[in-house]
Amino acid sequence: MTTNVESRPALRRADLHSALEDPALLSMNFLNEVANRFPDAISFAPGRPYEESFDTEALHRYLHAFCNYLEKERGQDPAQVRRTLFQYGRTKGIVHDLIARHLHVDEGIEVDPESVVVTVGCQEALFLVLRALRRDERDTVLAVSPTYVGLTGAARLLDMTVCPVRDSEVGVDLDDLVVQIRAARAAGLNPRACYLVPDFANPSGVTLSIEARRTLLRIAAEEQLLLLEDNPYGFFRASGERVPTLKALDTERRVVYLGSLAKTCFPGARVGFAVADQLVAHDDGSTSLFADELSKIKSMLTVNTAPISQAMVGGKLLEHHGSLLRANWMEIEVYRRNLTHLLEGLEKRFHSAPDLGWNTPSGGFFVVVTVPFRVDDTLLEHSARRHGVLWTPMSHFYDGAGGENQLRLSCSVLTPEQIDDGLDRLANLVDEQRWCVGVDQEGEQDG
Amino acid sequence: MTTNVESRPALRRADLHSALEDPALLSMNFLNEVANRFPDAISFAPGRPYEESFDTEALHRYLHAFCNYLEKERGQDPAQVRRTLFQYGRTKGIVHDLIARHLHVDEGIEVDPESVVVTVGCQEALFLVLRALRRDERDTVLAVSPTYVGLTGAARLLDMTVCPVRDSEVGVDLDDLVVQIRAARAAGLNPRACYLVPDFANPSGVTLSIEARRTLLRIAAEEQLLLLEDNPYGFFRASGERVPTLKALDTERRVVYLGSLAKTCFPGARVGFAVADQLVAHDDGSTSLFADELSKIKSMLTVNTAPISQAMVGGKLLEHHGSLLRANWMEIEVYRRNLTHLLEGLEKRFHSAPDLGWNTPSGGFFVVVTVPFRVDDTLLEHSARRHGVLWTPMSHFYDGAGGENQLRLSCSVLTPEQIDDGLDRLANLVDEQRWCVGVDQEGEQDG
Repeated sequence: MTTNVESRPALRRADLHSALEDPALLSMNFLNEVANRFPDAISFAPGRPYEESFDTEALHRYLHAFCNYLEKERGQDPAQVRRTLFQYGRTKGIVHDLIARHLHVDEGIEVDPESVVVTVGCQEALFLVLRALRRDERDTVLAVSPTYVGLTGAARLLDMTVCPVRDSEVGVDLDDLVVQIRAARAAGLNPRACYLVPDFANPSGVTLSIEARRTLLRIAAEEQLLLLEDNPYGFFRASGERVPTLKALDTERRVVYLGSLAKTCFPGARVGFAVADQLVAHDDGSTSLFADELSKIKSMLTVNTAPISQAMVGGKLLEHHGSLLRANWMEIEVYRRNLTHLLEGLEKRFHSAPDLGWNTPSGGFFVVVTVPFRVDDTLLEHSARRHGVLWTPMSHFYDGAGGENQLRLSCSVLTPEQIDDGLDRLANLVDEQRWCVGVDQEGEQDG
Repeated sequence: MTTNVESRPALRRADLHSALEDPALLSMNFLNEVANRFPDAISFAPGRPYEESFDTEALHRYLHAFCNYLEKERGQDPAQVRRTLFQYGRTKGIVHDLIARHLHVDEGIEVDPESVVVTVGCQEALFLVLRALRRDERDTVLAVSPTYVGLTGAARLLDMTVCPVRDSEVGVDLDDLVVQIRAARAAGLNPRACYLVPDFANPSGVTLSIEARRTLLRIAAEEQLLLLEDNPYGFFRASGERVPTLKALDTERRVVYLGSLAKTCFPGARVGFAVADQLVAHDDGSTSLFADELSKIKSMLTVNTAPISQAMVGGKLLEHHGSLLRANWMEIEVYRRNLTHLLEGLEKRFHSAPDLGWNTPSGGFFVVVTVPFRVDDTLLEHSARRHGVLWTPMSHFYDGAGGENQLRLSCSVLTPEQIDDGLDRLANLVDEQRWCVGVDQEGEQDG
């Protein structure tokens, strides 16, 4: 279709921002590209939500429900309703009070709706917080490693250094956190916040104990650090009791809660939020809410989150009286069934393998498998082509070295049959790779 | 609602990013806040689109039309349609081909749909482009001054210097453009692009002649500069012939076209786009589309533009066979009527005033009035409280000094009666301020 254009490049990549050559940004592209090239492979890769309950007619219902709410509960006349849906709107959003009610009902988190900033997915919330905190090159963010690649990517866009904190069986190595804070300060850096997913973390699947949460809050208060709590999977517990969120335990407003409605409503609305109830002290003695500072940044980034999208999640929230936990009863069952099936399937196939292990998360979408061979992008392509099974190399979640012998399995969009079939294919890959490693080692012994 | 929290500030604004104290970011907040405090004032302030054609039922129709298109024209089965609407989607968007068709039909712009990045409003498109181009502190953007505050704000978030270029009756002082490029280079800076609104600019209302456009393209090619063409108002011509966009004249891929659907569809979808068909040369000899580089950034900023929102504008595009020009026939008439009425109203009230002048844009939403007294935020508040009329101080659109005796009038959401009433109120303010200035001058003479 292009006509009359010169094909001489107008730009050189070396002249563009460094993030464009960074592994964090290339990773997402590479993984999508592999998935697209092998559409028939069984994929343990994506962290997407279960799809069977999606219903196009529900969108019409949600829109009606939200319009009805604007008229009946907010007293808007039909012209105001149209203006709310169609015009530019409040930068902090129009479903902030419905989200505050959801947090009260489902999480026992009590927040003033004015502290809620509705965002274009959780990713924008993350970006807003990092942009606000990154004043100069000394301001850094700590992150429990392995880390969600969206944190690393957002930091890269801002030239913000990410300092990794060691993971542990309780979700974070609390001693290492203090060590890293002190080390950063000693190096002239200014650690501003620590990012983590306390419930069924992406990618590790690990959940922080209540004791670890309390200690973490104490450290944050002592070290004048914010905690960035990202909680997309908290509802999806497969076994045991739910643990309160950091924000629910946060008596000193040390936690910025990053909410995603992608898994609890649906990704297609692209609605997330930040709860930022911190007070910000100004030089003139006045204070503002951190949420209002984030709002100023948002006004120059996306202006506001699409009211149309907010109306859809608003309608879903209204239909379920603010409880997304109740709205997700079926999804919770499906994810429990899938995770249990995946863990049993691993046990069945690999229980007697001394060279292969996996963790046993109590919920969420992800399991990490440790294998006796190198796991990288080349192996992923080989696995897709030769064995018809996709997964994610754990090295993608390390900013630097780490995870070279691990892969992440996600089970959120598969059926039990697909899980079985996928695990059989994975077992074939494992057998083949063990044989290769064996040959290599013999070769080395011979050589 | 907040319980058990300490009210000691957790943050100091001095520790947050400098943009948060920048006039560009405070401006938007201040203007919204004044508008909210005086809801009964007649407002010449907002650049919002005409509201009378908004229709909630149309949203249901658009959604149906888009689903039908996915099935009939893209061959998706019902499960795929649901996945398209509800799941995470293509980073560059799902209405890229419909947008490419619209550009062909309405603007004579021929682009490969792969060069289109669908964004969360035009603001995100602007941010993506600046982020890609701002590699280090030497990379600057030129902007015709007075400038849309969204450009300045986005640059501030990226610590990117904006170099102002003088305005002129043809829309941009082309000699000054070359002077500024050379001066920036002499100062060790690297001017990467020049931002402008060639049609009925915000805030000046001025339109570039065809000759100026051709010269601008030649300068861009000679100086290895990109042109960032922002075109939200191009359809809304009140008199004369439409002039081709820079992108339609761009034979060397020097123009990144920033599209807004806020005025031509509706703001509540928050859908805009960038056309970025530049080739990017990599060190290994390969090339990529600039659109794909922008997409990588978007994947870490908003992941993708809400498919729900895209479906709404997609439905509207389909209903009108890709022509938003045809879809906006009524809006075009309304804006023509309003602008004509505003200009006639100014003439009627101020034609004999030698100390007061205004420009006469041939379309768009905005007219700039020059007055014989100082125009600032204090006067705006006074105007709202005492005279019941709102407008925008032009100084908000200058990054530094400028516009101290000017105000911007917007007429897009008013009726002719409101325009008359508002102009009467403005005339009262002018009379009062002339008297004050007279008193001041007498006082000075006396003193």
